[in-house]
Amino acid sequence: MVALSNAREALEQIKKVRQIRQYRPDPVPEEVVTELLEVARWSGSSRNTQPWHFIVVDDREILRRISRLRPPINWVAGAPLGIAIVLDGESETSEAYDEGRVAERLLSAAKLLGLGGGVAWYGDASQQAEAKRILGIPPGRTARSIVAIGYARTARDPRPGPARGGRKPLAELVSVNRYGERRS
Amino acid sequence: MVALSNAREALEQIKKVRQIRQYRPDPVPEEVVTELLEVARWSGSSRNTQPWHFIVVDDREILRRISRLRPPINWVAGAPLGIAIVLDGESETSEAYDEGRVAERLLSAAKLLGLGGGVAWYGDASQQAEAKRILGIPPGRTARSIVAIGYARTARDPRPGPARGGRKPLAELVSVNRYGERRS
Repeated sequence: MVALSNAREALEQIKKVRQIRQYRPDPVPEEVVTELLEVARWSGSSRNTQPWHFIVVDDREILRRISRLRPPINWVAGAPLGIAIVLDGESETSEAYDEGRVAERLLSAAKLLGLGGGVAWYGDASQQAEAKRILGIPPGRTARSIVAIGYARTARDPRPGPARGGRKPLAELVSVNRYGERRS
Repeated sequence: MVALSNAREALEQIKKVRQIRQYRPDPVPEEVVTELLEVARWSGSSRNTQPWHFIVVDDREILRRISRLRPPINWVAGAPLGIAIVLDGESETSEAYDEGRVAERLLSAAKLLGLGGGVAWYGDASQQAEAKRILGIPPGRTARSIVAIGYARTARDPRPGPARGGRKPLAELVSVNRYGERRS
């Protein structure tokens, strides 16, 4: 296999992926939506089960209703598009992992294409049930989150008491061969 | 935000990410390991908790012991490197999702750099406990998987009865605005 010619530039962009909660009103072009879905479609999953279904939501009224599920996701109302992830089974750990894999692809691909994205969690079981009603998702499926997509206005978190940005240093995050051990 | 100049080329590579189980013996260069960890470090997580720790495993004996946890992951013995993901808490859905996010980044970044990767699950609770012993992971942490990394020999699955490759078509995977509805 050959490395991408400007792999480092692509990886710099991927490292700059942030949770975007404020979007410009511009719609997401149809070909961008298709490309994001293609990248998502090719995600790996446990035993290649591909346990997902995607609902592309560009109806602003539906996004507004989702945004009202709980105050911390009220910013979803300002996104031009969302891709709701629906999982085939009842909530399993392996499906949550696969959901994270596919969401990460959507966010990275959006960034590479010059857009931004943000994950919004519906909330507890009753809020998830309400989200399923809004999106017409049948029983027996799991729906926990929607990935908002659009052109970022800013990466700033407009909510009161936002989480701290930045990341822990590698020295704090990495061991070698056994937990807590460093390269000798 | 500006799109990456050759975003489409990068996305083509990301779409070609496959689970790699057969590696060339060549070691993974130190600067590649660092770049993979940097990409992982910058992953997003629930409330930016960064609930992870990474164990870079290049001790072949440790990889061999991991590979013996259960037959479907015996291929791990042939990988030159693994990055074991350790989660801060007891197994929670949001941490499984974040684990999937960070694993996907490792796999995509490896691909862009000309390498391949594969996720290996330790197995059930007792196999996870054994993996934790092998890797010296303290109690109260969750460890479910290691991402093998190396130069791919082939993307073929050498195991008996491999899962089918390929992916479902978009027409089967995508609804618009409500589950089961198409663009009118």
